[in-house]
Amino acid sequence: MIQGRDVVTLDTFSPEEIRFVIERAREMKAHGHGSSLQGRSLVMVFFDPSLRTRSSFSIAFSSQGGTVVDMVASRDIWALEMREGAVMDGVADEHVRDAAAVLSEYADMIAIRALSRHDDWARERRDQVIVSFQKYASVPIFNMESVLDHPTQAWGDALTLTEEFGDLRGKKIALTWAYHPQTRPLAVPHGVGVMATKLGMDVTVCHPEGYELDHDVRETMELCAGETGGSVRWTDDRRAGLENADVVYAASWGSTLYHGRPDDERDLRRRHYDWRLTQDLMSTTNEARFLHAMPIRRNVEADDEVVDAPYSRVVVQAGNRLHIQRALFAEVLKT
Amino acid sequence: MIQGRDVVTLDTFSPEEIRFVIERAREMKAHGHGSSLQGRSLVMVFFDPSLRTRSSFSIAFSSQGGTVVDMVASRDIWALEMREGAVMDGVADEHVRDAAAVLSEYADMIAIRALSRHDDWARERRDQVIVSFQKYASVPIFNMESVLDHPTQAWGDALTLTEEFGDLRGKKIALTWAYHPQTRPLAVPHGVGVMATKLGMDVTVCHPEGYELDHDVRETMELCAGETGGSVRWTDDRRAGLENADVVYAASWGSTLYHGRPDDERDLRRRHYDWRLTQDLMSTTNEARFLHAMPIRRNVEADDEVVDAPYSRVVVQAGNRLHIQRALFAEVLKT
Amino acid sequence: MIQGRDVVTLDTFSPEEIRFVIERAREMKAHGHGSSLQGRSLVMVFFDPSLRTRSSFSIAFSSQGGTVVDMVASRDIWALEMREGAVMDGVADEHVRDAAAVLSEYADMIAIRALSRHDDWARERRDQVIVSFQKYASVPIFNMESVLDHPTQAWGDALTLTEEFGDLRGKKIALTWAYHPQTRPLAVPHGVGVMATKLGMDVTVCHPEGYELDHDVRETMELCAGETGGSVRWTDDRRAGLENADVVYAASWGSTLYHGRPDDERDLRRRHYDWRLTQDLMSTTNEARFLHAMPIRRNVEADDEVVDAPYSRVVVQAGNRLHIQRALFAEVLKT
Repeated sequence: MIQGRDVVTLDTFSPEEIRFVIERAREMKAHGHGSSLQGRSLVMVFFDPSLRTRSSFSIAFSSQGGTVVDMVASRDIWALEMREGAVMDGVADEHVRDAAAVLSEYADMIAIRALSRHDDWARERRDQVIVSFQKYASVPIFNMESVLDHPTQAWGDALTLTEEFGDLRGKKIALTWAYHPQTRPLAVPHGVGVMATKLGMDVTVCHPEGYELDHDVRETMELCAGETGGSVRWTDDRRAGLENADVVYAASWGSTLYHGRPDDERDLRRRHYDWRLTQDLMSTTNEARFLHAMPIRRNVEADDEVVDAPYSRVVVQAGNRLHIQRALFAEVLKT
Repeated sequence: MIQGRDVVTLDTFSPEEIRFVIERAREMKAHGHGSSLQGRSLVMVFFDPSLRTRSSFSIAFSSQGGTVVDMVASRDIWALEMREGAVMDGVADEHVRDAAAVLSEYADMIAIRALSRHDDWARERRDQVIVSFQKYASVPIFNMESVLDHPTQAWGDALTLTEEFGDLRGKKIALTWAYHPQTRPLAVPHGVGVMATKLGMDVTVCHPEGYELDHDVRETMELCAGETGGSVRWTDDRRAGLENADVVYAASWGSTLYHGRPDDERDLRRRHYDWRLTQDLMSTTNEARFLHAMPIRRNVEADDEVVDAPYSRVVVQAGNRLHIQRALFAEVLKT
Repeated sequence: MIQGRDVVTLDTFSPEEIRFVIERAREMKAHGHGSSLQGRSLVMVFFDPSLRTRSSFSIAFSSQGGTVVDMVASRDIWALEMREGAVMDGVADEHVRDAAAVLSEYADMIAIRALSRHDDWARERRDQVIVSFQKYASVPIFNMESVLDHPTQAWGDALTLTEEFGDLRGKKIALTWAYHPQTRPLAVPHGVGVMATKLGMDVTVCHPEGYELDHDVRETMELCAGETGGSVRWTDDRRAGLENADVVYAASWGSTLYHGRPDDERDLRRRHYDWRLTQDLMSTTNEARFLHAMPIRRNVEADDEVVDAPYSRVVVQAGNRLHIQRALFAEVLKT
C-alpha cells in the first residue's frame, strides 16, 4: 500500500494508509521480529545528534535482518551545496545531488535528521536538506525529524492512542504547550497536530500568544479535520482547553515569530514559566491519558505526579516508535 | 544459572557462577559462534570513550546474530538528572529514570561505560550512573567499566588463568602497581582483586603508600578469601610481593586519597617512577605468567622484555574478553 | 586466489588477480548478496573521517552476514606509538604492535584509514600507520585510503571501465589534474595510475608543473606498462593529453614538493584555477567516459555539463565500490 514511498511528512498519507501501518505495527508488536529486510540496507545521515531516534531506527531495521550504517555528518564536517549550478569554490565539499545519488547506490533507504539552523522561520520551514535529498535520491527517504515534521514520532503516537481507544474519531486530544528552559523544535507538535486531525480527532491546541504553530500546518489541520469529521480549536486558556480531554499531549516548542532570535524568544518564553502540567489540571479531563514525546523536563514541563501517574503512557509511547518504524520499513521496502 | 542478572560487579556472583560462565566461554571459544541472540538487541551507552571494550562487546553480541547500537552519549551532550524529584530547569535534558525506561523498551540489554568525573572519591565510588540505570531499567545492565569495577575484564582474566592452571585455588597472584604518566582508574585492580579472592587464589597486592585500593573493596577481598580458602596480603615491597608468584598482574591506578586533585596525585605518583616491571623482578617468581589489561605503556609500566616474553599472556588475555562476553550475553539472555 | 592477502596497494596484485576480483564483483553485482561472511567480523579504524568509504565498506561486509565495528580513532584520542623499543612516557597510549595484536583477536579483518599529517612528503609517503598494522596484525589488513594509495577506489574504477569496454588493453585513459579550493590527497591518482598500467591501458597524466605524482609510483607505472604492453605519458598540455582519450578521469591532488607547507602549495595551486574540465575539452576525446572519485566540486573541478552528461559514469563508479569490496571481502576471507 505504501511501497517505495518517502516518509517525510504525514501530510502525504491518507487516513487509510496511516491506519494500515498502525495495524501492521500491532501485528508485528504481537508476533516479534522476522527477517523481511535480509540483504537490505539503511543509511542514516545525522546533521544533528540523536540518541532515541537513532537507536530505535537502528534496532527496528536490523532486528528484521537488515544492515544499518549511520553517518554522523554534522554540517560542520560535511557541508552540502544545495544551489543548482553553484560554482563550488567555497566551503561545501559536495553537492546534495551527488551525495543523494551515491548513497542511493549503497542503500535501499536513506533516513535524514536535519533540524533548524536557527535562521528566519520563512527560510527554515522549507526543510531544504530533506527536500533536496527527496529530489535527488532514487530510494525512499525517511524523516528522522526535520524543521517542520517528525512523522515517525506522530505515527507511533497514533499507534499508542489506537491501543488505548481503538477508533480515534471523536476522541478529544489537548495538545498543550509547556515551558522548557530551552527553545524546542516545532516538528513534534506539527506532526501530532496533522496526525490527530487526519484520524478524525477533536483537537485543542493550547499555547501562550506568540507560540502559534506554522501557518501552513494550521491550514492543513483545519483542512484534514474538515475531511475526517474532526475539529480544531486554538486557545490560550489551558484550563478550558483540557476540560473533558481524553488525551493530554504536552510539548514545548519555539515561537516562529522569534525564530533565529534566541534572546527575544527567551524573554517571551520566560513569561510563561507557569505552563507546567499539574495533577490539578489533569483532574478536569475525562480521565485523560498523558503523552509526551520525551525527553521531558520533570517538574518543569509536567510534575512527577503526572509523568508517573497510572494514566501516563510516556514509556509505552516511546517504545511504540520501534514498532511503528518496523512496520513502516517492512511496508515501504516490500518487494 | 545467571539469566536476567545485571553484570555490574563480580561481587554479586558466587564462585560457582563465575566458574560456570568460564566453562561456557571455553566451550564457545572451541566451537565458534552460534545464533542464540537472533532478534535480540544491545544498546551500549558510552559516557566515556572506548575502543577495545566497544569492539569486543559489539562483536561478541552481533556474532551471535544480535543487533548492537552504540550511543556515544558523553555527559556533555546528554546530561542526565539523577536526583529524585528534581525541578529540571538546569542543564540536564532527561532524568535517568526516563532514559533507562525508554532504552528498556528498545533493547534486551543495556551496557554502560561511565568513568570518574575526577570528583572526591567518597562521592565517585557510589557509581551513580550505572547504579541509577540498574534501579530504573527493566532489562539487564552490563558494566563496561565504571568508577568502581570492570567485571568483564576480570572475568575474562579468570578465563585466561583457568586456561593456564585449571583450578585456581592456592595459586599465587601478585597484583602490582605500575607507574604511568597519567592517573588511571581503579576499576581494573578492584575487579581483579575480587575475582582472584572469589576463586580462592593467594593474592598479594603491591603498591606504594597512598595507592591503597578502596576500603570496601579491600574488605570484600578479605571476606571472599576467608570464604574460599584464599588469602590477601598488602605490601609496598615489590620484590617480596612477587616472590614465588604464579601470576604477575601489572596495573596502574590512581590514589583514592588525592582523587579529584590531579596536581597532588601527580606529585605523589612521580616519586614512584621506578615501579616498572623488569625481567629481573620476574625472575624471582615461580615462572609466573604476565598479565596486563591493556593498553600498556611499554618500558614505563613494564619492559618490552617482559611484555613480549614467552610467559606473557597479554594478547590472549585481551582476546578472552570476547569469549567471556559471548558466554555472559548468551547466559544472561537465555530464554 | 587472494585468500588471506592484505589489500593495501594494488602494486602487490598481478593483472590476473585484479581481473579475477573484477569478474567476481560482476557476478555478485548480478546475483545479489549471499551470506558467506556469517560469523566473520571486520573492525574499521578511522584515523581520519570518512562518509562514503565507511558506508560502502560497512554495507559490503554486513550485507553478506558479517559483523562490522567502526572505531573513530582520530589520532587525537588514540595516539599510537610506532617506534620499536620506545619508552612510552609521552602522549602515546598504546603501541601499534599491541593495538594490531589485540584487534586481530577480535576481528577477521582490519581496515584502516590514515591520511597525511601534513608533514614532509619523504616522511609521509612511508605510510607508517598502515604499514605498522600490516607488520603486527595477524589478520588481513585493508587500506581505506592512506597517504600513498586507495586501492579499493581504483579497483572499483577498474570494474566500471571493464563494464564499459571489456578488455582494457590499448584503451586510452587521460588522468587529469583539476583545481580545488583545498589541497587534496594523492592516493586516488596513485591508485588509478597503477591500476590502469597494470591492466595494459595507455595512460596520459596531465598536470601543471609541480604536481608530479610520487617518484616511486611513477616508476611503478612505467614498469607495469612495460610488462603489460601499456604506456605512460606525462604532460602539462591538457588539450593534447585528452585528445582521442576513451576515458577522462579528473582528480585534484596536492604537490609533493610543497607537502606540509600549505601556504606555498596554495599559491602554486591558485595559478591553475583554469584547470576545470569543460565540455569543450571533452569534445576532443574519442567520446570518452567521464570518471571522478567524488566528492566533486561542481563548476570548479568540472562543469555541471560534464558531470551530468550522458557519458558521465560518476554515480555508477561510486556504486561499484560496494561491489568490488564485496568481492574482495569474500575472496580474502574465503576458507
